[in-house]
Amino acid sequence: MTYFNQKQINYEGPYSTNPLSFKYFNPEEVIGGKTMKDHMKFSVAYWHTFTEDLSDPFGGGTAVRNWDHLDGMDRAKARVEAMFELLEILNVDYFCFHDADIAPEGKDLKETNENLDEIVALIKEKMAETNKKLLWNTANNFSHERFVLGAASSSNADVFAYAAAKVKKQLDIAKELGASSYVFWGGREGYESLLNTDMKLETDNLARFFKLAKAYAEKIGFEGQFLIEPKPKEPTSHQYDFDVESGHAFLQKHGLDDVFKFNIEANHATLAGHSFQHELRYARDNDMLGSVDANQGHPLLGWDTDEFPTDVYETTMAMYEILKNGGLDKGGLNFDAKPRRTSFAQEDLIHTHIAGMDAFALGLRVAHKMIEDNFFENIVDEKYKSYTEGIGQKIVEGETSLEELEAYALENSEITNKSDHLELVKSQINQYILNINRGV
Amino acid sequence: MTYFNQKQINYEGPYSTNPLSFKYFNPEEVIGGKTMKDHMKFSVAYWHTFTEDLSDPFGGGTAVRNWDHLDGMDRAKARVEAMFELLEILNVDYFCFHDADIAPEGKDLKETNENLDEIVALIKEKMAETNKKLLWNTANNFSHERFVLGAASSSNADVFAYAAAKVKKQLDIAKELGASSYVFWGGREGYESLLNTDMKLETDNLARFFKLAKAYAEKIGFEGQFLIEPKPKEPTSHQYDFDVESGHAFLQKHGLDDVFKFNIEANHATLAGHSFQHELRYARDNDMLGSVDANQGHPLLGWDTDEFPTDVYETTMAMYEILKNGGLDKGGLNFDAKPRRTSFAQEDLIHTHIAGMDAFALGLRVAHKMIEDNFFENIVDEKYKSYTEGIGQKIVEGETSLEELEAYALENSEITNKSDHLELVKSQINQYILNINRGV
Amino acid sequence: MTYFNQKQINYEGPYSTNPLSFKYFNPEEVIGGKTMKDHMKFSVAYWHTFTEDLSDPFGGGTAVRNWDHLDGMDRAKARVEAMFELLEILNVDYFCFHDADIAPEGKDLKETNENLDEIVALIKEKMAETNKKLLWNTANNFSHERFVLGAASSSNADVFAYAAAKVKKQLDIAKELGASSYVFWGGREGYESLLNTDMKLETDNLARFFKLAKAYAEKIGFEGQFLIEPKPKEPTSHQYDFDVESGHAFLQKHGLDDVFKFNIEANHATLAGHSFQHELRYARDNDMLGSVDANQGHPLLGWDTDEFPTDVYETTMAMYEILKNGGLDKGGLNFDAKPRRTSFAQEDLIHTHIAGMDAFALGLRVAHKMIEDNFFENIVDEKYKSYTEGIGQKIVEGETSLEELEAYALENSEITNKSDHLELVKSQINQYILNINRGV
Amino acid sequence: MTYFNQKQINYEGPYSTNPLSFKYFNPEEVIGGKTMKDHMKFSVAYWHTFTEDLSDPFGGGTAVRNWDHLDGMDRAKARVEAMFELLEILNVDYFCFHDADIAPEGKDLKETNENLDEIVALIKEKMAETNKKLLWNTANNFSHERFVLGAASSSNADVFAYAAAKVKKQLDIAKELGASSYVFWGGREGYESLLNTDMKLETDNLARFFKLAKAYAEKIGFEGQFLIEPKPKEPTSHQYDFDVESGHAFLQKHGLDDVFKFNIEANHATLAGHSFQHELRYARDNDMLGSVDANQGHPLLGWDTDEFPTDVYETTMAMYEILKNGGLDKGGLNFDAKPRRTSFAQEDLIHTHIAGMDAFALGLRVAHKMIEDNFFENIVDEKYKSYTEGIGQKIVEGETSLEELEAYALENSEITNKSDHLELVKSQINQYILNINRGV
Repeated sequence: MTYFNQKQINYEGPYSTNPLSFKYFNPEEVIGGKTMKDHMKFSVAYWHTFTEDLSDPFGGGTAVRNWDHLDGMDRAKARVEAMFELLEILNVDYFCFHDADIAPEGKDLKETNENLDEIVALIKEKMAETNKKLLWNTANNFSHERFVLGAASSSNADVFAYAAAKVKKQLDIAKELGASSYVFWGGREGYESLLNTDMKLETDNLARFFKLAKAYAEKIGFEGQFLIEPKPKEPTSHQYDFDVESGHAFLQKHGLDDVFKFNIEANHATLAGHSFQHELRYARDNDMLGSVDANQGHPLLGWDTDEFPTDVYETTMAMYEILKNGGLDKGGLNFDAKPRRTSFAQEDLIHTHIAGMDAFALGLRVAHKMIEDNFFENIVDEKYKSYTEGIGQKIVEGETSLEELEAYALENSEITNKSDHLELVKSQINQYILNINRGV
Repeated sequence: MTYFNQKQINYEGPYSTNPLSFKYFNPEEVIGGKTMKDHMKFSVAYWHTFTEDLSDPFGGGTAVRNWDHLDGMDRAKARVEAMFELLEILNVDYFCFHDADIAPEGKDLKETNENLDEIVALIKEKMAETNKKLLWNTANNFSHERFVLGAASSSNADVFAYAAAKVKKQLDIAKELGASSYVFWGGREGYESLLNTDMKLETDNLARFFKLAKAYAEKIGFEGQFLIEPKPKEPTSHQYDFDVESGHAFLQKHGLDDVFKFNIEANHATLAGHSFQHELRYARDNDMLGSVDANQGHPLLGWDTDEFPTDVYETTMAMYEILKNGGLDKGGLNFDAKPRRTSFAQEDLIHTHIAGMDAFALGLRVAHKMIEDNFFENIVDEKYKSYTEGIGQKIVEGETSLEELEAYALENSEITNKSDHLELVKSQINQYILNINRGV
Repeated sequence: MTYFNQKQINYEGPYSTNPLSFKYFNPEEVIGGKTMKDHMKFSVAYWHTFTEDLSDPFGGGTAVRNWDHLDGMDRAKARVEAMFELLEILNVDYFCFHDADIAPEGKDLKETNENLDEIVALIKEKMAETNKKLLWNTANNFSHERFVLGAASSSNADVFAYAAAKVKKQLDIAKELGASSYVFWGGREGYESLLNTDMKLETDNLARFFKLAKAYAEKIGFEGQFLIEPKPKEPTSHQYDFDVESGHAFLQKHGLDDVFKFNIEANHATLAGHSFQHELRYARDNDMLGSVDANQGHPLLGWDTDEFPTDVYETTMAMYEILKNGGLDKGGLNFDAKPRRTSFAQEDLIHTHIAGMDAFALGLRVAHKMIEDNFFENIVDEKYKSYTEGIGQKIVEGETSLEELEAYALENSEITNKSDHLELVKSQINQYILNINRGV
Repeated sequence: MTYFNQKQINYEGPYSTNPLSFKYFNPEEVIGGKTMKDHMKFSVAYWHTFTEDLSDPFGGGTAVRNWDHLDGMDRAKARVEAMFELLEILNVDYFCFHDADIAPEGKDLKETNENLDEIVALIKEKMAETNKKLLWNTANNFSHERFVLGAASSSNADVFAYAAAKVKKQLDIAKELGASSYVFWGGREGYESLLNTDMKLETDNLARFFKLAKAYAEKIGFEGQFLIEPKPKEPTSHQYDFDVESGHAFLQKHGLDDVFKFNIEANHATLAGHSFQHELRYARDNDMLGSVDANQGHPLLGWDTDEFPTDVYETTMAMYEILKNGGLDKGGLNFDAKPRRTSFAQEDLIHTHIAGMDAFALGLRVAHKMIEDNFFENIVDEKYKSYTEGIGQKIVEGETSLEELEAYALENSEITNKSDHLELVKSQINQYILNINRGV
């Protein structure tokens, strides 16, 4: 180990007092016919873990990293080494990156691409050595000032072309490294103000951009899943992929709903006024749940805090949706999460991942037990059983009419509903969570 | 006049100190080839103006109305009289209602329908006398406790049937009274919690419900426009028609996007995390802008305050979108607005409508002037002109590829963007608003 | 039992599957030298449990209660019976009420007071029989339409007088029934708009009102604790007691900070942009933590949902603050909470209280263990130890100056901070919660 | 002119189409006995105008400034030149700065102070030449990573000392340059989480810090007004000076309420859940309105956007409060505002200030007219007149008791309130704004 000097991290079970041990994540343990590793396919996010300096709009970076003394390509190479070390330490199989994370921009696009080639070769070598895999990669078409007015939705066609060139390069890399998926997060695809924005041209261009990417992926034979990552705002005042539903409207309109699934981020869901579970459920119901950016927001802050997930209520319901989806296929659980600015030590990179992985592992255990018990399923079956017979069945099968329903209602004006006992359900969920230790 | 004892209200121009006069709304004045009345097609909302008692969750009704001493059908008839008086006083041509607004519920559905029939006959008579028109009607499938778990999305098939019967009746009435449109607002079509909700069944049932309504409308030859009114939350924690985009996703999925347009409410837009203009623009860009519920929310409150619109910035940009849409066709500007609980006097019903109509009339005048000057159009044309030639044109026409764009970008790494001077634009909008008085 | 027909509810421990049993609340169990009952002093809120009909702004009441067939004073008496039954069933010792909850308004104030007298006599009798106690009472000076413009802060002096008369009556009742505390919640003490509000006169009048109440309490020898319950908004757009801090500013300004403590409600805290713990901590730090309204808001809704508390993270940190406060003295944990509108059955009144009591009982167990371990105390001692010696000690003891500090800093420009490992702390809190079952 | 090459900016009146002219701000025009310049005392904020690069959390700086080619002290000097040019161009008399804005940090505190001395000498020279004045200065105790855990409220006493040394230096500079006021904005004086925070020690230390500063100011004879600038959150999750009220509570508790007034920022007010006017009014009512940071937030974004103010409703009510306060004494209207990231051209620095100054100048004109007309005063006098006679007068004069009020209420159970016609008031405000052009 060069960059992390940590003791071996073991699965020590829920009562261990060792802060550097997993309490709930036991990678090879089989739950419901699949190992925990395979259920969750954790991924480390290159940007937060290896390039994030923990600056904020009111202050500079606080992160202390032992590759900070290096510069340029040397630092880029050191980060690759550090990443594979960390994957090993954490027993994590996957990683994700933007182009901008792994190699510095050169003096022009050509040099930038050469820098990428050099680092990609190094990554490929390390992947072969370690059997670690690329969950997805993406082009960062938002940080550089050239994207100030958008990328695919920029008012400047030169910027569209530049962004397209970057995506082409990343699709080549995705193919080269065998990425499972490819993500589009439109950090600048939105507007600061409608007052000077041609929203129709911008969103049509966004669709054109996606179609160009699809055509190129087909041409080079890249078979990874294309993913859109919705976010309502920040950095722009309004992002075009506000949430999963608006992304779904866009994809259907442009005939792209068979091409894309969604990469759903917890903190983006809550910024959009939804629960994380809502976004997962909507995507699942529409067979579009592709992958997950696992993090959590701050309940009182109106911006993207990208905190490591520790709320067990959230991880439990997320894992419930994922299990009901039959897993995530070509996706995984990527920690799009960073330590808080006050957790600036290198060792926090390990603590925070353990915190997040354990929270999800606990969620998996609880959700699996609930499903074994048909806990939610029994509630729902009972609640909706009127649709399995009589007039309800006719409704579901499309074999009725307003006239027939009116005739029925005229005979059935007096209606009895049943309490749904929501607080009892919540109390029982507490029981499921609190009792999960029992079997250990 | 029986219920309102007001002096004639005239258009007295912007410098009048008479609080009971219009300052900007001059119904027959022609602007851009159309009278102000036709541009805006104002509508009075029966529920807020004639049945609302101004109670809130912490206190009883404060409204003092001179039909309060009456009961049951007598009160219902008095309200009809009062409404036609108010339409006359305000020079408003349209009105809107839910079934529950115009007639009391009977002991069963049959009696309820008989009550409706009696009042509808009275309304029809008054319409013939006065030439006032029904902008839209709708079924209130949310207030009665039978809808506690939803209407079309209820877990109880008996409730689905009951709701369907109510919609059938309202479609019959819409046909009878010649309504321009028919609205669906799904006040209980959503969930309190996902924990015990089968969202897929509920939203599929909602689509089935809409299809039944469409089939019946076709059968009876009702040609009004079907409208969905999105709202993100309240009363439920999550409404299925969260915003225009999510409604669009739903309609496309179920093959209903040719059947429906949207009735967009300002306060619902802001509760969903959008601007009013955003929702109007999105609908306009997709040819789905059907009608408008004109009101405004409170900037600091997280619930639906349904205030009369007085913010001229908002009414200006709303009228800009409506003018660019070529008007609202079968829709209009319905004041889904109520006086504040502290504005409880009968005369506030007049003051508040004047306030709202004048704010929109001013918005119309300003927006019309901006369009005459190509104010926004010039900004946008200049900003996006790179898409009218060269590589930009190829992008828009779909005649390029990632390879070509990469080649272009490699030659054009150095990119120059232009400031969009947003603050200057805002300052100029202030000028447009402040200067609109000049010509009077 | 007349109104509740429930099996005996026992403490059955965490693994019981009986929904009608307590899992964590064991009333007589001693924790840290005090029984669980005494630690928490649970109270049932008369308004939510016995008079709330579960209506919302968009629909009528759904609650099914077996005293609904009664009217007027008969219903009021039935509710008293029902309340003492429920206290018995739940093993709860305390209750709270507003005047408006326990008896109907009469045709004038005199008759209203007579109604109150009759019910108070009945309550006193039942208290003597059962040994149940009144935690606090209060005057409802917000629901009736006379309070539309405020009560103590009304622009109408007649309303000030009326509100004062109601408080006098309630202080008499508080004395009569031996209430531990007396609460002021200023539901209409705020403004709809500053545009027509004399905020200085209104808040000065509020202070005058409190001083009158204090003088009267002294005169009659009522020794209960006076409590202010802050809330930022709703029903008004801005309440004067926005949060604990603004209440503290007000009390200090008017020399009332020795007379009042705070009754802190969880949902009010979050509506004000704080955490529940923040409000508790601020009050504790200023020796003003008087009592607690135990509930929780909905994370995505911007209004007061008053849900029964089930989030164990919240109850744990609340109980931590309460334990560190040395308990609540004359206060308690009042469930200012109502079932959701969809949980309308009578039995939900029992389920919801069990859910809330168990969530707090679990919080008590966890917080007690943390304090035994000095978990937070060790973190804080280590973090701030620089203030126990050297320049830090001089700072705390007020024995330094800017000049000395500058001299020190000039010699100590290079500063080393320590990561506060926040995510590790959160992960350890998860351990505390999850492991609390162990000992059972 | 070296850094700005602009045509002379004139006052051309409301109908000028020249974007680079003032429409409402006419510096020497006398309104109510005082020039517009003296009414508003505009100030340019050094940080936003001369050092801000318009980066955001998702992307790099976009600002194009013609001093960007310089470095270190050369750039610092160029910025001084540029500032005095801009003050001249805009006809602005005041400026404000943090230490960190005007000179670069050196290798240690000593060198940092030497850098400051050199620039301060240059500023002093330019001030003498131009008669421009320093409204206030402050120490930036938040940007550098040493302040990661707070400054005066840091858990590290070395940081407290360092922050104190910086304040000492700035007080010396305030004295040297004749600053009217001195501001404390506690950007890191708050917490990321209560879980590891000793809030009592931290806030007590904050009070100690203020007392040390006060003692030093007295010692050196600095007579500027001390100001606290409240903000609820960002960068921390919870700032101790959440809003004016919480600041007031803190100051009273520590006996500092005679020493400080408030510097109120519009965007901070709205982030705290208040209106800008509310914070101004509360401070005015308590004789603590010291100065104003003039900007506006984005209605849909949950963070500090610091936009130039263009909303005339806001500027009107702000100027109303300032006029009723008798002006701002030692304070002024500082533009704590930056161009949007997309308004990155150097000329935007001029456009944005004109936009903001004109919006406030218009607000001044409207507010002055309203006060001349006693518009709000008449509304309020009528509304509260019951407190000028009879029982109301006794209440205000403290000459009544609960017993007397009860006796009064028993005779006056039937209460009549008057509608406050809020919508009419808002409509009339629109008239005031729209009609202000008339006289020009």
